[in-house]
Amino acid sequence: MGESGLNLEPIGVIHSCFKEKFGIPRQPGLVEHSTATIELFPPFNREEMVRGLEGFSHIQVLFLFHRAVAEGWRPTVRPPRLGGRARVGVFACRSPHRPNHIGLSAVRLGAVRTTGGVCLDVSGVDFLDETPVLDIKPYVPYSDSIQDASDGFTGTEDVGGGEGGMIFFSAQAAAFCRNYEEKKSRPLHLLITEMLERDPRPRSQRERKTEFGMLLWDVNIRWRMEEGSVVVERIESVV
Amino acid sequence: MGESGLNLEPIGVIHSCFKEKFGIPRQPGLVEHSTATIELFPPFNREEMVRGLEGFSHIQVLFLFHRAVAEGWRPTVRPPRLGGRARVGVFACRSPHRPNHIGLSAVRLGAVRTTGGVCLDVSGVDFLDETPVLDIKPYVPYSDSIQDASDGFTGTEDVGGGEGGMIFFSAQAAAFCRNYEEKKSRPLHLLITEMLERDPRPRSQRERKTEFGMLLWDVNIRWRMEEGSVVVERIESVV
Repeated sequence: MGESGLNLEPIGVIHSCFKEKFGIPRQPGLVEHSTATIELFPPFNREEMVRGLEGFSHIQVLFLFHRAVAEGWRPTVRPPRLGGRARVGVFACRSPHRPNHIGLSAVRLGAVRTTGGVCLDVSGVDFLDETPVLDIKPYVPYSDSIQDASDGFTGTEDVGGGEGGMIFFSAQAAAFCRNYEEKKSRPLHLLITEMLERDPRPRSQRERKTEFGMLLWDVNIRWRMEEGSVVVERIESVV
Repeated sequence: MGESGLNLEPIGVIHSCFKEKFGIPRQPGLVEHSTATIELFPPFNREEMVRGLEGFSHIQVLFLFHRAVAEGWRPTVRPPRLGGRARVGVFACRSPHRPNHIGLSAVRLGAVRTTGGVCLDVSGVDFLDETPVLDIKPYVPYSDSIQDASDGFTGTEDVGGGEGGMIFFSAQAAAFCRNYEEKKSRPLHLLITEMLERDPRPRSQRERKTEFGMLLWDVNIRWRMEEGSVVVERIESVV
């Protein structure tokens, strides 16, 4: 406990495919092939501290919205799911700009690696790279998965562009993906496809712009909109 | 941010039916009629900060395990669900004795009261009275309720005593409940019944003792075990 309140110590850090805010899914579980690795710090990275965790399919990750801390919090927010028009209270949405800036995501647990520390591979993530981790808990279905829960914004679930457009890869982009997947064992083509199916463009940009870029892992992806379809034009490594 | 890390400020406090650790359900949602009120503190108790929350059936409550802070954390834990024998890592269970001491419970949202501050009535709780609240988030089913999640301790869910015994109330206890429910509008008889159906006795006491007591809201309940059944003998107000 600190003098002026409660002190938190990050137990680890997230290495995520999302290097920037642009395009990050608004909730976990939406982009299946979005992946991250949670690296625990000493003294929290002993094998025994995660013993038994590998039996769970999902975990709850509590983290800090580190990029929002300096910006403080706002009493009301315009959630993207409501089209950015209606205002709701900060406690009625999952905005990063909230008191205490704590985030919560339930994600799928992959490998639990305990050689020389502890790393957890997770997927279906909505984490920004370098996010500090505050806690890891098992996702316990009988209390965490509420079958009859209802949602105040029902009917407005943001399932993406939904315009039924196709996604095309240029020859360069397709070749880059094949090469990258071989070298790094990351399903880049699938991840890009899932991201673009959800239309990651902010609403404010949809009218004005036709060319877009996003960073995933260590690659930069350029695409353009063309008659309702998406053309992935060029993919390049970022040094 | 504090000098030595991240500083947290409680946004409110929980007034819970559970005045002591004894008998608290191990997860939320298990005792339907366990209730609490979350009182928000200024400057977090403005009506606009919870606007839209009333449309959700459930909320995620992030809180501090305040009674565990002074006791620190332990790398491994013997979870009650495994009979107190097997040890698992602290990140593989929901023990209060964890780094940062943050708790997470999804609970049912009742009334959102915004006259002279903000109070949220919730049920299906596992909160200790006077628990500091760190955050309130809406429970968003499409990302929070994971239908295919599996549980590392499957098959060992603690569904209570399960001995099929009956629960009897003495004439005094039954009359006390009727009177209390009229005065305070709290479903005391149902709450006691749900608690005892789950057998709140610690395993270590089941062999040695036959008489027990527990505190719920402002009443003390005395009961005894008798040939596998429970007899609620006496209920008294605590001043």
